Amino acid sequence: MKVLLVYAHPESRSLNGALRDFIVSHLQERGHHVQVSDLYAMGWKPTIDAADFLGHDPTERLDVVAASKHAYASGTQARDIEAEQQKLLWADTLLLQFPLWWFSMPAILKGWVERVYAYGFGYGVGEHSLQKWGERYGEGTFFGKRAMVITTTGGWDSHYSARGINGAIEDLLFPINHGILFYAGFDVLPPFVIYRTGFMTPERFEQARGELASKLDQLESARPISFRRQNGGDYEVPSLVLKEGIGEAKHGLRIHEQ
Amino acid sequence: MKVLLVYAHPESRSLNGALRDFIVSHLQERGHHVQVSDLYAMGWKPTIDAADFLGHDPTERLDVVAASKHAYASGTQARDIEAEQQKLLWADTLLLQFPLWWFSMPAILKGWVERVYAYGFGYGVGEHSLQKWGERYGEGTFFGKRAMVITTTGGWDSHYSARGINGAIEDLLFPINHGILFYAGFDVLPPFVIYRTGFMTPERFEQARGELASKLDQLESARPISFRRQNGGDYEVPSLVLKEGIGEAKHGLRIHEQ
Repeated sequence: MKVLLVYAHPESRSLNGALRDFIVSHLQERGHHVQVSDLYAMGWKPTIDAADFLGHDPTERLDVVAASKHAYASGTQARDIEAEQQKLLWADTLLLQFPLWWFSMPAILKGWVERVYAYGFGYGVGEHSLQKWGERYGEGTFFGKRAMVITTTGGWDSHYSARGINGAIEDLLFPINHGILFYAGFDVLPPFVIYRTGFMTPERFEQARGELASKLDQLESARPISFRRQNGGDYEVPSLVLKEGIGEAKHGLRIHEQ
Repeated sequence: MKVLLVYAHPESRSLNGALRDFIVSHLQERGHHVQVSDLYAMGWKPTIDAADFLGHDPTERLDVVAASKHAYASGTQARDIEAEQQKLLWADTLLLQFPLWWFSMPAILKGWVERVYAYGFGYGVGEHSLQKWGERYGEGTFFGKRAMVITTTGGWDSHYSARGINGAIEDLLFPINHGILFYAGFDVLPPFVIYRTGFMTPERFEQARGELASKLDQLESARPISFRRQNGGDYEVPSLVLKEGIGEAKHGLRIHEQ
Protein backbone atom coordinates (compact mmCIF):
# COMPACT_ATOMS: atom_id res chain seq x y z
CA MET A 1 0.00 0.00 0.00
CA LYS A 2 0.89 3.65 -0.36
CA VAL A 3 -0.44 5.26 2.80
CA LEU A 4 -0.83 8.95 3.51
CA LEU A 5 -1.16 9.62 7.24
CA VAL A 6 -2.49 13.08 7.99
CA TYR A 7 -1.77 13.71 11.64
CA ALA A 8 -3.02 16.59 13.77
CA HIS A 9 -1.68 16.89 17.30
CA PRO A 10 0.53 19.62 18.74
CA GLU A 11 2.74 17.36 20.88
CA SER A 12 4.83 14.44 19.63
CA ARG A 13 5.42 13.19 23.17
CA SER A 14 1.75 12.28 23.51
CA LEU A 15 -0.47 9.26 23.12
CA ASN A 16 -1.25 10.42 19.60
CA GLY A 17 2.44 10.90 18.87
CA ALA A 18 3.19 7.37 20.06
CA LEU A 19 0.37 5.99 17.92
CA ARG A 20 1.61 7.91 14.89
CA ASP A 21 5.11 6.46 15.29
CA PHE A 22 3.66 3.00 15.73
CA ILE A 23 1.50 3.31 12.60
CA VAL A 24 4.45 4.38 10.48
CA SER A 25 6.82 1.69 11.71
CA HIS A 26 4.18 -1.06 11.62
CA LEU A 27 3.22 -0.30 8.03
CA GLN A 28 6.83 0.07 6.90
CA GLU A 29 7.81 -3.23 8.52
CA ARG A 30 5.18 -4.88 6.35
CA GLY A 31 6.64 -3.33 3.22
CA HIS A 32 4.15 -0.50 2.76
CA HIS A 33 5.12 3.02 1.75
CA VAL A 34 4.09 5.81 4.11
CA GLN A 35 4.05 9.57 3.85
CA VAL A 36 3.12 11.64 6.89
CA SER A 37 1.62 15.10 6.86
CA ASP A 38 2.26 16.20 10.43
CA LEU A 39 0.18 19.36 10.30
CA TYR A 40 1.38 21.07 13.47
CA ALA A 41 5.03 20.25 12.73
CA MET A 42 4.64 21.54 9.16
CA GLY A 43 3.15 24.80 10.43
CA TRP A 44 0.17 24.09 8.18
CA LYS A 45 -1.83 27.24 7.37
CA PRO A 46 -5.31 26.38 8.64
CA THR A 47 -7.46 29.08 7.07
CA ILE A 48 -8.57 29.28 3.47
CA ASP A 49 -8.29 32.86 2.23
CA ALA A 50 -7.32 35.00 -0.76
CA ALA A 51 -3.62 34.17 -0.35
CA ASP A 52 -4.37 30.58 -1.39
CA PHE A 53 -5.21 31.69 -4.93
CA LEU A 54 -2.09 33.16 -6.47
CA GLY A 55 -3.88 34.81 -9.37
CA HIS A 56 -6.49 36.47 -7.18
CA ASP A 57 -6.54 40.27 -7.25
CA PRO A 58 -6.79 41.25 -3.56
CA THR A 59 -8.95 44.27 -4.38
CA GLU A 60 -11.53 41.98 -5.98
CA ARG A 61 -14.32 40.31 -4.04
CA LEU A 62 -13.30 36.78 -3.05
CA ASP A 63 -15.74 34.04 -4.10
CA VAL A 64 -14.08 31.02 -2.49
CA VAL A 65 -15.67 28.44 -4.82
CA ALA A 66 -14.92 30.38 -8.01
CA ALA A 67 -11.39 31.23 -6.88
CA SER A 68 -10.69 27.62 -5.95
CA LYS A 69 -12.02 26.40 -9.30
CA HIS A 70 -9.92 28.89 -11.21
CA ALA A 71 -6.73 28.31 -9.23
CA TYR A 72 -6.99 24.52 -9.43
CA ALA A 73 -7.66 24.59 -13.18
CA SER A 74 -4.93 27.12 -13.95
CA GLY A 75 -2.20 25.81 -11.65
CA THR A 76 -2.22 28.93 -9.49
CA GLN A 77 -2.89 27.35 -6.12
CA ALA A 78 -0.60 27.98 -3.16
CA ARG A 79 2.30 25.52 -3.25
CA ASP A 80 1.44 23.85 0.07
CA ILE A 81 -2.04 22.99 -1.24
CA GLU A 82 -0.63 21.43 -4.40
CA ALA A 83 1.86 19.38 -2.40
CA GLU A 84 -0.91 17.83 -0.32
CA GLN A 85 -2.98 17.11 -3.41
CA GLN A 86 0.00 15.26 -4.91
CA LYS A 87 0.28 13.14 -1.78
CA LEU A 88 -3.42 12.27 -2.01
CA LEU A 89 -3.04 11.27 -5.66
CA TRP A 90 0.02 9.16 -4.80
CA ALA A 91 -1.69 7.33 -1.93
CA ASP A 92 -4.10 4.43 -2.23
CA THR A 93 -4.96 4.69 1.46
CA LEU A 94 -5.62 7.76 3.59
CA LEU A 95 -5.47 7.77 7.37
CA LEU A 96 -6.71 10.78 9.30
CA GLN A 97 -5.36 10.71 12.85
CA PHE A 98 -6.45 13.22 15.46
CA PRO A 99 -7.77 13.69 18.98
CA LEU A 100 -11.53 14.25 18.91
CA TRP A 101 -11.83 17.88 20.01
CA TRP A 102 -15.34 19.18 20.53
CA PHE A 103 -16.75 16.13 18.77
CA SER A 104 -14.93 16.85 15.52
CA MET A 105 -11.46 17.15 14.02
CA PRO A 106 -9.00 19.80 15.26
CA ALA A 107 -9.17 23.14 13.46
CA ILE A 108 -5.81 22.58 11.78
CA LEU A 109 -7.07 19.39 10.13
CA LYS A 110 -10.40 20.96 9.19
CA GLY A 111 -8.39 23.67 7.48
CA TRP A 112 -6.39 21.01 5.63
CA VAL A 113 -9.64 19.68 4.18
CA GLU A 114 -10.95 23.14 3.32
CA ARG A 115 -7.76 24.11 1.47
CA VAL A 116 -6.69 20.82 -0.12
CA TYR A 117 -10.15 19.79 -1.30
CA ALA A 118 -10.19 22.30 -4.16
CA TYR A 119 -13.08 22.72 -6.57
CA GLY A 120 -12.45 20.19 -9.34
CA PHE A 121 -10.47 17.99 -6.95
CA GLY A 122 -12.36 17.37 -3.69
CA TYR A 123 -15.69 18.69 -4.97
CA GLY A 124 -17.11 20.07 -8.19
CA VAL A 125 -16.11 16.85 -9.99
CA GLY A 126 -18.18 15.59 -12.94
CA GLU A 127 -21.35 16.86 -14.58
CA HIS A 128 -23.39 19.24 -12.43
CA SER A 129 -26.90 19.65 -13.78
CA LEU A 130 -30.48 19.00 -12.76
CA GLN A 131 -30.00 15.48 -14.17
CA LYS A 132 -26.73 14.66 -12.43
CA TRP A 133 -25.46 16.22 -9.24
CA GLY A 134 -21.77 15.64 -9.84
CA GLU A 135 -19.57 12.68 -9.11
CA ARG A 136 -19.61 12.55 -5.34
CA TYR A 137 -20.66 10.24 -2.51
CA GLY A 138 -19.08 7.09 -3.87
CA GLU A 139 -17.51 8.63 -6.96
CA GLY A 140 -14.94 11.34 -7.50
CA THR A 141 -11.21 11.87 -7.45
CA PHE A 142 -10.51 9.24 -4.80
CA PHE A 143 -12.64 6.45 -6.23
CA GLY A 144 -10.94 3.12 -5.61
CA LYS A 145 -8.95 4.39 -2.62
CA ARG A 146 -9.64 3.64 1.04
CA ALA A 147 -9.69 5.87 4.08
CA MET A 148 -9.96 5.45 7.84
CA VAL A 149 -10.23 7.75 10.84
CA ILE A 150 -8.03 7.04 13.87
CA THR A 151 -9.09 9.11 16.85
CA THR A 152 -8.85 9.41 20.62
CA THR A 153 -11.31 10.73 23.20
CA GLY A 154 -11.18 11.63 26.86
CA GLY A 155 -14.75 10.38 27.32
CA TRP A 156 -15.65 6.75 27.90
CA ASP A 157 -16.91 4.37 25.24
CA SER A 158 -20.31 4.33 26.94
CA HIS A 159 -20.55 8.13 26.54
CA TYR A 160 -20.23 7.59 22.78
CA SER A 161 -22.45 4.51 22.56
CA ALA A 162 -25.83 4.34 20.81
CA ARG A 163 -27.57 5.87 23.85
CA GLY A 164 -24.58 7.71 25.30
CA ILE A 165 -24.82 11.40 26.11
CA ASN A 166 -22.25 12.62 23.57
CA GLY A 167 -24.09 10.99 20.68
CA ALA A 168 -23.11 7.77 18.96
CA ILE A 169 -19.55 7.96 17.62
CA GLU A 170 -20.81 6.89 14.17
CA ASP A 171 -23.16 9.89 14.09
CA LEU A 172 -20.54 12.34 15.33
CA LEU A 173 -18.11 11.11 12.68
CA PHE A 174 -20.73 11.10 9.90
CA PRO A 175 -19.78 14.60 8.67
CA ILE A 176 -16.20 13.32 8.26
CA ASN A 177 -16.72 9.73 7.12
CA HIS A 178 -19.64 10.47 4.83
CA GLY A 179 -19.37 14.21 4.18
CA ILE A 180 -15.62 14.45 3.54
CA LEU A 181 -14.22 10.98 2.78
CA PHE A 182 -17.05 9.11 1.03
CA TYR A 183 -18.08 12.39 -0.61
CA ALA A 184 -14.82 12.53 -2.55
CA GLY A 185 -14.90 8.86 -3.51
CA PHE A 186 -13.08 7.01 -0.73
CA ASP A 187 -14.28 3.69 0.57
CA VAL A 188 -14.44 4.45 4.29
CA LEU A 189 -13.50 1.85 6.88
CA PRO A 190 -15.05 1.86 10.36
CA PRO A 191 -12.99 4.18 12.57
CA PHE A 192 -10.42 3.12 15.12
CA VAL A 193 -11.21 4.90 18.39
CA ILE A 194 -9.37 4.87 21.72
CA TYR A 195 -11.59 6.13 24.54
CA ARG A 196 -10.77 7.36 28.03
CA THR A 197 -7.32 8.59 27.22
CA GLY A 198 -6.98 10.26 30.63
CA PHE A 199 -6.73 6.81 32.20
CA MET A 200 -4.14 5.23 29.92
CA THR A 201 -2.09 2.51 31.59
CA PRO A 202 0.79 0.57 30.00
CA GLU A 203 -1.58 -2.42 29.77
CA ARG A 204 -4.32 -0.47 28.02
CA PHE A 205 -1.78 1.09 25.66
CA GLU A 206 -0.40 -2.37 24.77
CA GLN A 207 -3.92 -3.58 24.09
CA ALA A 208 -4.84 -0.54 21.98
CA ARG A 209 -1.66 -0.89 19.97
CA GLY A 210 -2.44 -4.53 19.29
CA GLU A 211 -5.94 -3.66 18.12
CA LEU A 212 -4.57 -0.89 15.94
CA ALA A 213 -2.02 -3.26 14.42
CA SER A 214 -4.77 -5.62 13.46
CA LYS A 215 -6.84 -2.78 11.94
CA LEU A 216 -3.80 -1.71 9.92
CA ASP A 217 -3.27 -5.28 8.73
CA GLN A 218 -6.86 -5.31 7.47
CA LEU A 219 -6.79 -1.98 5.66
CA GLU A 220 -6.93 -3.68 2.29
CA SER A 221 -9.45 -6.38 3.20
CA ALA A 222 -11.87 -4.91 5.77
CA ARG A 223 -15.41 -4.19 4.71
CA PRO A 224 -16.07 -0.45 4.25
CA ILE A 225 -19.07 1.33 5.76
CA SER A 226 -21.87 0.62 3.29
CA PHE A 227 -22.83 4.23 2.52
CA ARG A 228 -25.27 4.53 -0.37
CA ARG A 229 -23.86 5.92 -3.61
CA GLN A 230 -25.43 9.17 -4.76
CA ASN A 231 -25.66 7.94 -8.34
CA GLY A 232 -26.50 4.33 -7.48
CA GLY A 233 -30.26 4.76 -7.85
CA ASP A 234 -31.32 5.20 -4.22
CA TYR A 235 -31.74 8.98 -4.38
CA GLU A 236 -34.07 11.18 -6.41
CA VAL A 237 -32.30 13.77 -8.58
CA PRO A 238 -32.00 16.73 -8.11
CA SER A 239 -33.72 16.71 -4.71
CA LEU A 240 -31.25 14.01 -3.53
CA VAL A 241 -33.81 12.61 -1.13
CA LEU A 242 -33.96 8.85 -0.64
CA LYS A 243 -36.58 7.28 -2.87
CA GLU A 244 -39.72 6.01 -1.23
CA GLY A 245 -39.21 2.66 0.39
CA ILE A 246 -35.42 2.98 0.58
CA GLY A 247 -33.86 2.84 4.04
CA GLU A 248 -37.21 3.00 5.78
CA ALA A 249 -36.30 0.23 8.20
CA LYS A 250 -33.36 2.34 9.42
CA HIS A 251 -33.23 5.47 11.52
CA GLY A 252 -31.30 8.69 11.81
CA LEU A 253 -28.15 9.01 9.75
CA ARG A 254 -28.03 5.22 9.36
CA ILE A 255 -30.61 5.51 6.54
CA HIS A 256 -27.68 6.47 4.32
CA GLU A 257 -26.14 3.02 4.77
CA GLN A 258 -27.28 0.00 2.78
CA MET B 1 -29.86 42.03 24.99
CA LYS B 2 -26.09 41.95 24.91
CA VAL B 3 -25.24 39.96 21.80
CA LEU B 4 -21.88 38.54 20.80
CA LEU B 5 -21.77 37.72 17.09
CA VAL B 6 -18.87 35.44 16.19
CA TYR B 7 -18.51 35.65 12.44
CA ALA B 8 -16.31 33.48 10.23
CA HIS B 9 -16.11 34.38 6.55
CA PRO B 10 -13.08 35.66 4.61
CA GLU B 11 -14.96 38.18 2.44
CA SER B 12 -17.07 41.08 3.68
CA ARG B 13 -18.56 41.65 0.23
CA SER B 14 -20.40 38.33 0.41
CA LEU B 15 -23.82 37.02 1.34
CA ASN B 16 -22.47 36.29 4.80
CA GLY B 17 -21.00 39.78 5.05
CA ALA B 18 -24.35 41.31 4.11
CA LEU B 19 -26.13 39.16 6.69
CA ARG B 20 -23.59 40.13 9.36
CA ASP B 21 -24.17 43.83 8.69
CA PHE B 22 -27.90 43.32 8.74
CA ILE B 23 -27.79 41.44 12.05
CA VAL B 24 -25.75 44.18 13.70
CA SER B 25 -27.89 47.06 12.45
CA HIS B 26 -31.19 45.28 13.09
CA LEU B 27 -30.27 44.45 16.69
CA GLN B 28 -28.86 47.94 17.35
CA GLU B 29 -31.97 49.61 15.93
CA ARG B 30 -33.97 47.71 18.54
CA GLY B 31 -31.74 49.00 21.31
CA HIS B 32 -29.62 45.90 21.83
CA HIS B 33 -25.86 45.97 22.38
CA VAL B 34 -23.73 44.05 19.92
CA GLN B 35 -20.08 43.04 19.84
CA VAL B 36 -18.71 41.32 16.75
CA SER B 37 -15.75 38.96 16.65
CA ASP B 38 -14.96 38.96 12.92
CA LEU B 39 -12.42 36.14 13.03
CA TYR B 40 -10.86 36.56 9.59
CA ALA B 41 -10.65 40.34 9.97
CA MET B 42 -9.09 39.95 13.42
CA GLY B 43 -6.49 37.55 12.05
CA TRP B 44 -7.65 35.09 14.68
CA LYS B 45 -5.04 32.40 15.44
CA PRO B 46 -6.89 29.17 14.68
CA THR B 47 -4.63 26.53 16.25
CA ILE B 48 -4.30 25.74 19.91
CA ASP B 49 -0.65 25.19 20.78
CA ALA B 50 2.01 25.83 23.41
CA ALA B 51 2.10 29.57 22.66
CA ASP B 52 -1.43 29.88 24.12
CA PHE B 53 -0.15 29.10 27.61
CA LEU B 54 2.22 31.86 28.64
CA GLY B 55 3.69 29.95 31.57
CA HIS B 56 4.37 26.81 29.55
CA ASP B 57 8.02 25.76 29.29
CA PRO B 58 8.47 24.96 25.59
CA THR B 59 10.92 22.15 26.38
CA GLU B 60 8.25 20.41 28.46
CA ARG B 61 5.71 17.99 27.02
CA LEU B 62 2.46 19.83 26.24
CA ASP B 63 -0.64 18.31 27.81
CA VAL B 64 -3.34 20.54 26.31
CA VAL B 65 -5.93 19.91 29.02
CA ALA B 66 -3.49 20.41 31.91
CA ALA B 67 -1.92 23.47 30.29
CA SER B 68 -5.33 25.00 29.63
CA LYS B 69 -6.44 24.37 33.21
CA HIS B 70 -3.28 25.90 34.64
CA ALA B 71 -3.27 28.92 32.33
CA TYR B 72 -6.96 29.69 32.91
CA ALA B 73 -6.62 29.37 36.68
CA SER B 74 -3.41 31.40 36.91
CA GLY B 75 -4.25 34.16 34.42
CA THR B 76 -1.51 33.12 32.01
CA GLN B 77 -3.59 32.58 28.91
CA ALA B 78 -2.76 34.33 25.65
CA ARG B 79 -4.39 37.79 25.61
CA ASP B 80 -6.61 37.10 22.59
CA ILE B 81 -8.15 34.11 24.36
CA GLU B 82 -8.91 36.18 27.47
CA ALA B 83 -10.48 38.92 25.37
CA GLU B 84 -12.92 36.46 23.79
CA GLN B 85 -13.76 34.95 27.16
CA GLN B 86 -14.60 38.43 28.45
CA LYS B 87 -16.95 38.98 25.51
CA LEU B 88 -18.68 35.68 26.25
CA LEU B 89 -19.12 36.64 29.90
CA TRP B 90 -20.47 40.05 28.89
CA ALA B 91 -23.01 38.64 26.42
CA ASP B 92 -26.35 37.13 27.28
CA THR B 93 -26.77 35.89 23.71
CA LEU B 94 -24.23 34.25 21.40
CA LEU B 95 -24.64 34.06 17.64
CA LEU B 96 -22.30 31.87 15.61
CA GLN B 97 -22.45 32.88 11.94
CA PHE B 98 -20.62 30.93 9.27
CA PRO B 99 -20.91 29.22 5.90
CA LEU B 100 -21.31 25.45 6.36
CA TRP B 101 -18.03 24.11 4.97
CA TRP B 102 -17.73 20.34 4.78
CA PHE B 103 -20.80 19.97 6.94
CA SER B 104 -19.29 21.83 9.88
CA MET B 105 -17.92 25.20 10.92
CA PRO B 106 -14.91 26.75 9.16
CA ALA B 107 -11.52 25.87 10.65
CA ILE B 108 -11.02 29.40 11.99
CA LEU B 109 -14.23 29.17 14.05
CA LYS B 110 -13.43 25.65 15.22
CA GLY B 111 -10.13 27.05 16.43
CA TRP B 112 -11.96 29.82 18.27
CA VAL B 113 -13.88 27.18 20.20
CA GLU B 114 -10.77 25.10 20.91
CA ARG B 115 -8.83 28.07 22.26
CA VAL B 116 -11.54 30.11 24.00
CA TYR B 117 -13.26 27.16 25.67
CA ALA B 118 -10.52 26.72 28.27
CA TYR B 119 -10.57 24.07 30.97
CA GLY B 120 -12.49 25.61 33.86
CA PHE B 121 -14.40 27.84 31.46
CA GLY B 122 -15.85 25.89 28.52
CA TYR B 123 -15.27 22.47 30.08
CA GLY B 124 -13.93 21.04 33.31
CA VAL B 125 -16.56 23.01 35.25
CA GLY B 126 -17.96 21.61 38.51
CA GLU B 127 -17.33 18.39 40.40
CA HIS B 128 -15.82 15.62 38.31
CA SER B 129 -16.15 12.25 40.00
CA LEU B 130 -17.80 8.88 39.48
CA GLN B 131 -20.89 10.41 41.14
CA LYS B 132 -21.05 13.61 39.12
CA TRP B 133 -19.60 14.13 35.68
CA GLY B 134 -19.16 17.86 35.87
CA GLU B 135 -21.54 20.70 35.15
CA ARG B 136 -22.13 20.34 31.45
CA TYR B 137 -24.93 19.67 28.98
CA GLY B 138 -27.38 22.15 30.42
CA GLU B 139 -25.15 23.55 33.16
CA GLY B 140 -21.84 25.37 33.15
CA THR B 141 -20.39 28.80 32.61
CA PHE B 142 -23.07 29.93 30.15
CA PHE B 143 -26.12 28.74 32.05
CA GLY B 144 -28.96 31.22 31.55
CA LYS B 145 -27.59 32.51 28.24
CA ARG B 146 -28.91 31.72 24.78
CA ALA B 147 -27.14 30.79 21.56
CA MET B 148 -28.07 30.31 17.92
CA VAL B 149 -26.28 29.17 14.78
CA ILE B 150 -26.76 31.18 11.59
CA THR B 151 -25.40 29.35 8.58
CA THR B 152 -25.50 29.16 4.78
CA THR B 153 -25.16 26.22 2.41
CA GLY B 154 -24.70 25.78 -1.30
CA GLY B 155 -26.85 22.64 -1.23
CA TRP B 156 -30.62 22.68 -1.36
CA ASP B 157 -32.92 22.34 1.62
CA SER B 158 -34.01 18.92 0.35
CA HIS B 159 -30.38 17.73 0.44
CA TYR B 160 -30.37 18.53 4.17
CA SER B 161 -33.86 17.22 4.92
CA ALA B 162 -34.68 14.18 7.07
CA ARG B 163 -34.01 11.82 4.14
CA GLY B 164 -31.65 14.09 2.17
CA ILE B 165 -28.26 12.81 1.08
CA ASN B 166 -26.14 15.18 3.17
CA GLY B 167 -27.83 14.11 6.39
CA ALA B 168 -30.48 16.06 8.27
CA ILE B 169 -29.22 19.53 9.14
CA GLU B 170 -30.15 18.92 12.80
CA ASP B 171 -27.88 15.89 12.90
CA LEU B 172 -25.00 17.64 11.14
CA LEU B 173 -25.25 20.55 13.58
CA PHE B 174 -25.59 18.28 16.65
CA PRO B 175 -21.84 18.39 17.42
CA ILE B 176 -22.12 22.19 17.53
CA ASN B 177 -25.56 22.75 19.04
CA HIS B 178 -25.32 19.95 21.59
CA GLY B 179 -21.58 19.30 21.84
CA ILE B 180 -20.33 22.89 22.03
CA LEU B 181 -23.22 25.22 22.93
CA PHE B 182 -25.51 23.16 25.16
CA TYR B 183 -22.44 21.44 26.60
CA ALA B 184 -21.26 24.71 28.12
CA GLY B 185 -24.69 25.70 29.41
CA PHE B 186 -26.32 27.69 26.61
CA ASP B 187 -29.98 27.29 25.78
CA VAL B 188 -29.73 26.61 22.05
CA LEU B 189 -32.28 27.95 19.62
CA PRO B 190 -33.08 26.14 16.36
CA PRO B 191 -30.61 27.30 13.71
CA PHE B 192 -31.27 29.81 10.98
CA VAL B 193 -30.16 28.29 7.68
CA ILE B 194 -30.11 29.77 4.17
CA TYR B 195 -29.81 27.04 1.54
CA ARG B 196 -28.82 27.18 -2.12
CA THR B 197 -26.66 30.25 -1.84
CA GLY B 198 -25.39 29.85 -5.40
CA PHE B 199 -28.83 30.85 -6.67
CA MET B 200 -29.43 33.95 -4.59
CA THR B 201 -31.72 36.49 -6.22
CA PRO B 202 -32.67 39.91 -4.83
CA GLU B 203 -36.10 38.45 -4.06
CA ARG B 204 -34.71 35.46 -2.18
CA PHE B 205 -32.30 37.71 -0.28
CA GLU B 206 -35.17 40.01 0.75
CA GLN B 207 -37.14 37.03 1.95
CA ALA B 208 -34.20 35.54 3.86
CA ARG B 209 -33.49 38.87 5.51
CA GLY B 210 -37.11 39.12 6.61
CA GLU B 211 -37.01 35.64 8.10
CA LEU B 212 -33.74 36.42 9.84
CA ALA B 213 -35.20 39.64 11.28
CA SER B 214 -38.05 37.70 12.77
CA LYS B 215 -35.65 35.10 14.23
CA LEU B 216 -33.63 37.92 15.79
CA ASP B 217 -36.78 39.47 17.23
CA GLN B 218 -37.58 36.16 18.89
CA LEU B 219 -34.14 35.51 20.36
CA GLU B 220 -35.43 36.13 23.88
CA SER B 221 -38.74 34.34 23.51
CA ALA B 222 -38.24 31.41 21.13
CA ARG B 223 -38.31 27.90 22.53
CA PRO B 224 -34.84 26.32 22.73
CA ILE B 225 -34.07 22.84 21.44
CA SER B 226 -35.16 20.56 24.28
CA PHE B 227 -31.84 18.75 24.81
CA ARG B 228 -31.84 16.59 27.93
CA ARG B 229 -29.75 17.88 30.84
CA GLN B 230 -26.91 15.60 31.87
CA ASN B 231 -27.72 16.05 35.55
CA GLY B 232 -31.49 16.11 35.12
CA GLY B 233 -32.01 12.43 35.90
CA ASP B 234 -32.27 10.97 32.39
CA TYR B 235 -28.73 9.57 32.26
CA GLU B 236 -26.98 6.92 34.35
CA VAL B 237 -23.79 8.14 36.05
CA PRO B 238 -20.92 7.61 35.29
CA SER B 239 -21.78 5.66 32.11
CA LEU B 240 -23.87 8.63 30.92
CA VAL B 241 -26.15 6.33 28.97
CA LEU B 242 -29.86 7.14 28.83
CA LYS B 243 -31.77 5.25 31.48
CA GLU B 244 -33.98 2.41 30.35
CA GLY B 245 -37.27 3.64 29.00
CA ILE B 246 -36.01 7.17 28.33
CA GLY B 247 -36.17 8.39 24.74
CA GLU B 248 -37.06 4.97 23.40
CA ALA B 249 -39.78 6.36 21.14
CA LYS B 250 -37.15 8.52 19.40
CA HIS B 251 -34.35 7.62 17.03
CA GLY B 252 -30.79 8.59 16.22
CA LEU B 253 -29.46 11.73 17.86
CA ARG B 254 -33.01 12.87 18.57
CA ILE B 255 -33.06 10.58 21.65
CA HIS B 256 -31.14 13.35 23.41
CA GLU B 257 -34.12 15.70 23.09
CA GLN B 258 -37.06 15.57 25.46
